[in-house]
Amino acid sequence: MSYLRLAMAQINVMVGDFEGNKKKILDYLQLSEKAQADVIIFPELCICGYPPEDLLLKPSFIEDNIKVLEEIRGAVNSSLVCIGFAAKDSDSRIYNAAAFLQHKEIKALYRKIHLPNYGVFDERRYFTPGDHCCLVNFGGIGLGITICEDIWYPDVIQELSRQGAQIVLNISASPYHTGKGRLREQLFKKWAIENRIFLAWNNLVGGQDELVFDGQSLLFDSKGSLLARGKTFEEDLLLIDLSLESFSALRGNIKEGKQQEISHVRYPVKKVFLTSSFRQKTNPKAFYIRSRLSPLTEITKALILGISDYVKKNGFSKVAIGLSGGIDSALTATLAVDALGAENVVGVIMPSQFSSKETQEDAKRLALNLQIHFLQISIIDIYHSYMNSLKRIFNDYPPDITEENLQARIRGNLLMSLSNKFGWLILTTGNKSETSVGYCTLYGDMAGGFAAIKDVPKTVVYYLSRYRNKKAGFDLIPKTIIDRAPSAELAPDQKDQDLLPPYAILDAILKRYVEKDESFSQIVAAGFDSKTVKKVITMVDRNEYKRRQSPPGIKITPRAFGKDRRMPISNKYWKNHK
Amino acid sequence: MSYLRLAMAQINVMVGDFEGNKKKILDYLQLSEKAQADVIIFPELCICGYPPEDLLLKPSFIEDNIKVLEEIRGAVNSSLVCIGFAAKDSDSRIYNAAAFLQHKEIKALYRKIHLPNYGVFDERRYFTPGDHCCLVNFGGIGLGITICEDIWYPDVIQELSRQGAQIVLNISASPYHTGKGRLREQLFKKWAIENRIFLAWNNLVGGQDELVFDGQSLLFDSKGSLLARGKTFEEDLLLIDLSLESFSALRGNIKEGKQQEISHVRYPVKKVFLTSSFRQKTNPKAFYIRSRLSPLTEITKALILGISDYVKKNGFSKVAIGLSGGIDSALTATLAVDALGAENVVGVIMPSQFSSKETQEDAKRLALNLQIHFLQISIIDIYHSYMNSLKRIFNDYPPDITEENLQARIRGNLLMSLSNKFGWLILTTGNKSETSVGYCTLYGDMAGGFAAIKDVPKTVVYYLSRYRNKKAGFDLIPKTIIDRAPSAELAPDQKDQDLLPPYAILDAILKRYVEKDESFSQIVAAGFDSKTVKKVITMVDRNEYKRRQSPPGIKITPRAFGKDRRMPISNKYWKNHK
Repeated sequence: MSYLRLAMAQINVMVGDFEGNKKKILDYLQLSEKAQADVIIFPELCICGYPPEDLLLKPSFIEDNIKVLEEIRGAVNSSLVCIGFAAKDSDSRIYNAAAFLQHKEIKALYRKIHLPNYGVFDERRYFTPGDHCCLVNFGGIGLGITICEDIWYPDVIQELSRQGAQIVLNISASPYHTGKGRLREQLFKKWAIENRIFLAWNNLVGGQDELVFDGQSLLFDSKGSLLARGKTFEEDLLLIDLSLESFSALRGNIKEGKQQEISHVRYPVKKVFLTSSFRQKTNPKAFYIRSRLSPLTEITKALILGISDYVKKNGFSKVAIGLSGGIDSALTATLAVDALGAENVVGVIMPSQFSSKETQEDAKRLALNLQIHFLQISIIDIYHSYMNSLKRIFNDYPPDITEENLQARIRGNLLMSLSNKFGWLILTTGNKSETSVGYCTLYGDMAGGFAAIKDVPKTVVYYLSRYRNKKAGFDLIPKTIIDRAPSAELAPDQKDQDLLPPYAILDAILKRYVEKDESFSQIVAAGFDSKTVKKVITMVDRNEYKRRQSPPGIKITPRAFGKDRRMPISNKYWKNHK
Repeated sequence: MSYLRLAMAQINVMVGDFEGNKKKILDYLQLSEKAQADVIIFPELCICGYPPEDLLLKPSFIEDNIKVLEEIRGAVNSSLVCIGFAAKDSDSRIYNAAAFLQHKEIKALYRKIHLPNYGVFDERRYFTPGDHCCLVNFGGIGLGITICEDIWYPDVIQELSRQGAQIVLNISASPYHTGKGRLREQLFKKWAIENRIFLAWNNLVGGQDELVFDGQSLLFDSKGSLLARGKTFEEDLLLIDLSLESFSALRGNIKEGKQQEISHVRYPVKKVFLTSSFRQKTNPKAFYIRSRLSPLTEITKALILGISDYVKKNGFSKVAIGLSGGIDSALTATLAVDALGAENVVGVIMPSQFSSKETQEDAKRLALNLQIHFLQISIIDIYHSYMNSLKRIFNDYPPDITEENLQARIRGNLLMSLSNKFGWLILTTGNKSETSVGYCTLYGDMAGGFAAIKDVPKTVVYYLSRYRNKKAGFDLIPKTIIDRAPSAELAPDQKDQDLLPPYAILDAILKRYVEKDESFSQIVAAGFDSKTVKKVITMVDRNEYKRRQSPPGIKITPRAFGKDRRMPISNKYWKNHK
């Protein structure tokens, strides 16, 4: 029996690191060729990294990425390699493109047709959309090529299938959010069945600022059966043998000449004919399907990869985290240890006059459990020194939010001083619920390089903490931290719930308002107390200024703050919440 | 002689302030109708404000904006009103649209064809492009309508002119940058001549976060002569009488029925026929042309409007500014006084052990010259208190950037404490040169709500300061401030030029690298020292993380930081600077 051996290289590259990316691609290329792969595919824009953002506006960046493509081309022998890069035409228009390389030549070029320009995506800002489909006849097998967004619409796949594609390849850089894995699989399975095609989807891996790419590359056969799934949040090289007989059962091969006369063809198909003698494979590769992770495992792994890639890709090795004895900093420190190792995480305990003995003890216990180094610096003297310098000016104004924020900002300064002195990156510890309503101090607990759990709602912070403890088999995060009512400890007997509704209610309202764009009246109609809704969503709107100055954090929900949600600061729409 | 009286309402609206915007539009409508205007035009998206960003993704926001359009429609009598709003079709697609209103009805609707999606613009994120031109025959006069970007391309105007337009109206929200006024006038004049049309361009006014809209509405006749120019950076109502005879000299009127058979028509023209009896005007309005401002006046007015609108639109009345005795804080304070009045500006002098007597004296002199209230708070005790708390941890690590940043961050904390206690907005004082190379302290001098001169290069800071003094007729900004070599005063005998090249060279390199996307080799080829270039552009790349957390500031150059320049933080492209 003859096989087509498909290699899907699910790799972690870095934006702008042309040397590093080239090396990694060549390594995987060599590995795949050694494994006798016939077709080898690499992710979308993997030569330059994704998303390159405004680096794409630099002509030198485009040139450098083309140079790397040329070098890779020179290394390709009889295998057919499909790889993503930024292409340029003679009018200097830029395309999100895929090159088919064989025998040291570029055999075909495809330009992405559907350019996403919503959510975190800005592809219309950089790229011109392609207007042709691309179909390669490779030794009798019809390979259609698509790039990421192209297969979220039916038209390109349909056209490729109609023109004789038996496998549709898709190279992607599809960022993670919860639930997206299931969505993809449902959709791709549907396309495979409807179009009677094999669908091979190869996704990027790695963290890039706010985004984390989850891999989980997929292969469906023409009946919609899942033949392979790659690792989640890890690099992988999938090698899959597809019997040539399985293709002959499908509709006829690609015909030369004009495309079939179908009146509604939007994208004419360019066809390329390549020869290949599929070598006899001595050991046909079994399909392998890595299991899908449970939601909590998935989120945890997303956060761990997001943290470790941000830290390493920005040239840091160690991080420091302010430990308050609360659950947010406890979870952040635990994730950091899982991402970087205990030896690369420092806990900083900075008690004030309002810090209870219990929270300080809990912070220390956590540090001991995690086996991380920890420092203790009291902020009491510094605080008095500020108040002393300000007392003449504050005169008899009563204490208010000022004194609370000041404490948080002293901690921020101390952490930044440690960062400057020892080269540690500071991880901030704010969750999505706080970030939404602005229950945090600008330049205080918001001060740091990376906001690891910025997109994790407080209710999920609890789930993740309990899940981590269960996995550890003991209370790695002390039970008292999980059980204690949350408090910022910036004033006597303060509790989060003095100012905010219970987190279960808060998070439900936030999901509707921030992620689903529901209005005040829709949320109230769903059964929430109108005063609470008004208070919460007004807080969201009025705190945009804080979020604009917050460090980036890892997107894990369908809509995160940052590039995903672009709100004006000067905005009176909150006046409309009646 | 009969006239068409055109009113162009160049107004300052606020994003999301539907009540306020409606009131303003109705006021200008009433004023224009009272002045017997036949045609009254309002800027792009003026019902909801521009740019509304992701508010456009909220269905309730679109509904609320349509409700306001309906209320305005109900107020329109025999005049023809053209106004910008966000339209929705039956498939819930959103359009950047213009409605023609008359006799309490919507007579025609135009959907913007060219949607800008570069620079600060994200219109493809929200809007579907229109696919029809729109031409209104108003009592025999052919009025073509276009929206902003539409007239930066030749096709729509050409089509309108071909189909019988005699006047092409354009409603805009065109943000300011230096040199843009001249660009617009050159282009619009060319269109008017080439297409034998009158061109009436009506622009928004006002500050909105990073953007400031300059007004300067324009009217060209069909020979390309400038007939009118509105005020710059101020609201205005232009009333212009155009003799009906001037139109009859132009090509024939709009014909009913099918459009002319031209093979390359991309956008079919929808035509609407309306009647009007142009009333005899008793006092024909003379054309008036407000003079264009000199570049320095223009920038100054942009900054003043940007500051005052940010402050007021965000509900503040007073600002505070840290006065170092340096030129950046001096210029910022001066602009703030010009924007808000001396009674609304507070100077805060925060000397350290490294502050010279001279700079402290200069800061006080400036405050006295500006007649602003000023506070003095020494940071010496607070600094010692920090160092005391850290000494056990810092051990025998020598002093470095840590101690410098700490001083800046103490000042940041003090300013934020004043902000919290007294409700003052903090204006930061960093210029574009510093912001580019990261010569500033995150959470230190970067701490505050609005970075007034963030997009002003240091060399221009000097020009603006001297210009302001000249206008004042005396050294409002003390001469010693202007003459002294710049220093952060965070270490003994420190000068900016110890670390940075002279500002004239730095700014020239930055303009090429940041604004023009030139590469290392291009800049070196232009004659700059290669070591200097490498150092500067590497600093730019490596400090993206600071800029990501900086407050918004006013765009005055062709490319500002913020939404205008979207760079990854995790980015190894700087390794390519060889």
